[in-house]
Amino acid sequence: MPNPQLNAHGELTHLLTTEGLPRETIEHILDTAASFLEVSDRSVKKVPLLRGKSVFNLFFENSTRTRTTFEIAAKRLSADVINLDVARSSTAKGETLLDTVDNLVAMHADMFVVRHNASGAPYLIAEHLRRTGRSEVHVVNAGDGRHAHPTQGLLDMYTIRHYKRDFSQLRVAIVGDILHSRVARSDIHALKALGVPEIRAIGPQTLLPVAIEKMGVRIFHDLREGVRDCDVIIMLRLQNERMNGALLPSAREYFKCYGLTTEVLALAKPDAIVMHPGPMNRGVEIASDVADGAQSVILPQVTFGIAVRMAVMSILAGN
Amino acid sequence: MPNPQLNAHGELTHLLTTEGLPRETIEHILDTAASFLEVSDRSVKKVPLLRGKSVFNLFFENSTRTRTTFEIAAKRLSADVINLDVARSSTAKGETLLDTVDNLVAMHADMFVVRHNASGAPYLIAEHLRRTGRSEVHVVNAGDGRHAHPTQGLLDMYTIRHYKRDFSQLRVAIVGDILHSRVARSDIHALKALGVPEIRAIGPQTLLPVAIEKMGVRIFHDLREGVRDCDVIIMLRLQNERMNGALLPSAREYFKCYGLTTEVLALAKPDAIVMHPGPMNRGVEIASDVADGAQSVILPQVTFGIAVRMAVMSILAGN
Amino acid sequence: MPNPQLNAHGELTHLLTTEGLPRETIEHILDTAASFLEVSDRSVKKVPLLRGKSVFNLFFENSTRTRTTFEIAAKRLSADVINLDVARSSTAKGETLLDTVDNLVAMHADMFVVRHNASGAPYLIAEHLRRTGRSEVHVVNAGDGRHAHPTQGLLDMYTIRHYKRDFSQLRVAIVGDILHSRVARSDIHALKALGVPEIRAIGPQTLLPVAIEKMGVRIFHDLREGVRDCDVIIMLRLQNERMNGALLPSAREYFKCYGLTTEVLALAKPDAIVMHPGPMNRGVEIASDVADGAQSVILPQVTFGIAVRMAVMSILAGN
Repeated sequence: MPNPQLNAHGELTHLLTTEGLPRETIEHILDTAASFLEVSDRSVKKVPLLRGKSVFNLFFENSTRTRTTFEIAAKRLSADVINLDVARSSTAKGETLLDTVDNLVAMHADMFVVRHNASGAPYLIAEHLRRTGRSEVHVVNAGDGRHAHPTQGLLDMYTIRHYKRDFSQLRVAIVGDILHSRVARSDIHALKALGVPEIRAIGPQTLLPVAIEKMGVRIFHDLREGVRDCDVIIMLRLQNERMNGALLPSAREYFKCYGLTTEVLALAKPDAIVMHPGPMNRGVEIASDVADGAQSVILPQVTFGIAVRMAVMSILAGN
Repeated sequence: MPNPQLNAHGELTHLLTTEGLPRETIEHILDTAASFLEVSDRSVKKVPLLRGKSVFNLFFENSTRTRTTFEIAAKRLSADVINLDVARSSTAKGETLLDTVDNLVAMHADMFVVRHNASGAPYLIAEHLRRTGRSEVHVVNAGDGRHAHPTQGLLDMYTIRHYKRDFSQLRVAIVGDILHSRVARSDIHALKALGVPEIRAIGPQTLLPVAIEKMGVRIFHDLREGVRDCDVIIMLRLQNERMNGALLPSAREYFKCYGLTTEVLALAKPDAIVMHPGPMNRGVEIASDVADGAQSVILPQVTFGIAVRMAVMSILAGN
Repeated sequence: MPNPQLNAHGELTHLLTTEGLPRETIEHILDTAASFLEVSDRSVKKVPLLRGKSVFNLFFENSTRTRTTFEIAAKRLSADVINLDVARSSTAKGETLLDTVDNLVAMHADMFVVRHNASGAPYLIAEHLRRTGRSEVHVVNAGDGRHAHPTQGLLDMYTIRHYKRDFSQLRVAIVGDILHSRVARSDIHALKALGVPEIRAIGPQTLLPVAIEKMGVRIFHDLREGVRDCDVIIMLRLQNERMNGALLPSAREYFKCYGLTTEVLALAKPDAIVMHPGPMNRGVEIASDVADGAQSVILPQVTFGIAVRMAVMSILAGN
C-alpha cells in the first residue's frame, strides 16, 4: 500500500502521522521551519505564500490552544482562515463527516486542519479526497484520538535538533501517560526516523501500551532509573480525567513517583533539556521550578511550533 | 408600498426575499455570480471589491454552514468579517434587536448578514435603517423563520440556469416539508419571476401550506406521480424535529413515501437534475445513491452558492 | 512605585486604568483618536499601522459587545486578530493564567486585550511581562472585575470633550449602580485628571461604594437634586442580577427613583448631554424617549469608542 501522505512524486500531500515519514521529508520540514522562524520575529509577521487560500480549522474535539497555533500560522502565511465549530454545526444535524468535507471542498477549501477524537478521521478525509480526485486539497492532522499528533511530533524534533544538533548519539526519555498519548506515538516514530539510538518509555504499568517494546523503546517503571544519563526528557501531560480513575491512585501519588523534580532531573545529563507539549499540570507531572528552570525548553517549543506549522502548510500548498 | 429592497433608482439596496424581485435584478445577480465563479477557482481567490468594508454576521439562530458560506464570500471580496455570536451577546442581556443594530451601525458597519428564527427580522432592520437615514448600510437575509432564504433561492436559480439554460419550458418539482421551508418559498417566487411554467409541490397533506395553490403551484401527494416528466427535482431537508412529532409517523415511513430513490427518479425526465439545500438526511428524504449519482447537482449548488453570495454582496456594496 | 502603565521614558506601554494616567497622556490619546475618527468614515476603512501584528482578545468573561469593538479597531489597523474563547480553553484544563500568557507570548503575540472578572488580572499579566523582560508586548484592560474599564473611561472623555470642549467648568453626574461599576471608577479618575471641578455620584445607599467621597465626588441619593444644573449625565447600566436581589426592591421601583425621564432631564442644563455605556435597559435606568432624544449622545459614544481603541492600540504598538 502506498504511503497515503505522499503523492506519486513522493512529495508530502497530507500530513497525517510521523509514522513512515521519510527522514528527508522530516528534515525538509524542519529546514523550512527554520526559515519561517525569522518571520515571526519581524515587525510585520507576514509572508504572502498562502494569500487567497482558504484554510478550514475543522475541530471535532475542542482545543483552543492547538487551533490557535494553526490559526496564527495560517494568518502569518496570509491565508483566509475559517474556524468551524463543528460540534455545533451540520454534523450535529446528522450530516456525515464526508458530506461536511464534500461541502467545504465545493466551497473551494484548500486545506483542512482536522482534530478528531476518533483515531483515523483525518485518514478517512484524505482517502476520500484521493478517491474523489481532489488532489489539490490537503489535510493536516491536528490530533486524532490516541493515534497521532504529527505537528507536535515535528516541533519536538525541531526543538531537539535546535538544542542537540545531532540525533545519532541521543538518549531520549518520554515520561508519563504514554498509553493515551498521541504525542508520544508521534515523537517515537519521528525519533526513530531521525536515527535516535535509545528511546525510553517511563511510566506506571497501567499507563504504558501493552506491546510498546515492539516500537523499539526501552521500558522503565522507575523514573529515577529511566532518566539517568538522558539528553532529552519529554514529560507528558497527565489528563485530569485519569487522576481519580482506576488507573492511578491520586495526583499527589503520581507526582511522588513520576513528577519531574530538580532532584530527579539531576540524574540526567547536565545539559539535558526538558520538554512538555502543554498545557502543564504544575505539581502533577512536573515541578514548577523545573518547568521554569534553565533546562526547560517548553516555551521555545511553542515558538518553534508556529514555524513548523507554517512550514507544513506552505509545503503542502506548494505540492 | 415601494419594494423595501430597492432604492429610488430601482437598484437593490437590501436582499430580503425573492418575492417581488424583478426578473432583471435576478438575472443581474446571476450574471454577476458567473463572473465570480472564476475567482474561487483561482490560485489567489481574492478580489478587492469590499476591501476595508465591515460585514457583520448577525446570526440569532445558529447555522455554521450558512454563516461559513457568507464568511468565505465576504473574505474572498476582501471584506473584514465579524461574526457575532448573538445568542451569547447583548441581546441576551436584554438589549433590543434595534439597539444592537444601532450600535453596530455606530461602529460603521457596512453590511449585515442576518439569520433569525422570527420571520421578518431582516425587514425590521432594513426598515429601521431606512427610517434613520442609513442608506449606506445593507441587509442580506440569510434565512428568517419560515419566510425566506433568498440567497438559497438565487443559488438554486443559478444551478438550474447552469444545467437547463432556458427557464421557459421547465417542469420543476419541490418535494418534502414545504410547510416549514423558507427555501421552498424563495424558490417558488424566483421560479415564477424567471418564467417557469410548471411548479409542483409534492408532500403529505400535513407538510404543505394550506393555501399553497395560490402561489401558482400544482399540488401532489404522491411522489411518483409528482416527479413524472420533471426537469428539476428539489428535495427539501426533513427537519429532525418533525420526524417523531404529530406530523409524521416516522423517518422510515417518510422515506418509503417521499424519499427520492433511483427507481422514483427514473420517472422524471432522463436528464432531470436533483437538488438539495443541505445538510442532507441520507435515507430519510434522499437515497444515498441518488445523492451521489450522476443526476445530482447538490455539490455544484454549494460552489455556485459562494459565487451568488459574492455577487449579492458586491452589488449591494456598489449601490 | 513607578506607574505600571508607563515605561522608563514616561510613555504608555500598557493601558490598565485611568487612575494615575497623566493629563497629557489622556489628551494624547484623545487627539490621536480624533485623527482615527476619519478612517472609520472612509470607503476603505483601513490603515496599515498594525499590519502583521498579532492581537489576542483574551476574554475570561464573556462580552460580545466589547470584544467586537476591539476586534473592529484592530482589524481597521490591519492587525491579525485572534479571539480566544478562554472559558473553553486550556485554563479550563487547569493551566494557570500566566502559563497561558507565556504560551501566547511564545507565539509572538504583540498585544493582549484582556477582560477578566477578577480585579487586577490585567496588572498581573503586565507585571509578569515586565518581570520576564517582554517589554514589546502590550496589555489593554478591557474591564477587570469592579475595578477599571479604561477604554470606556477614555471614550467617555472623548465624548465630553467633543460636545463640551472645555472640562474646567463642568458639572458631571454619574447615576446608578456605582458600587459594581468599573465604568464609573474609570470615568471619575479621568474626569479628575482633566480638571472637572464637580463630579456627582447619584444612587441609592446600597449601590454607592462606602468611601466614595474620598474620590472627590459629591453624593446624592435623590436623582432630581443630583442632576440639577449638570452639563453631563452618565447613566450606568443596572445589571439584571441586581434587580431582584437584596440590594433593590424591583426594576419598576428603581425606574421610579433613578430612571432618567425627560421630566428629570429638564432639571439639568438645557444643553446637557446624556451618556450610557450600553447595553441599555430601556425603562429601567433610562426612559426610551431620553435614550433616543436630542440630548442623547449614546450612539456617538460607540463611534468614538472605535477611534479611541484604535488610538490606544496604535500608541501602545508605537512605544
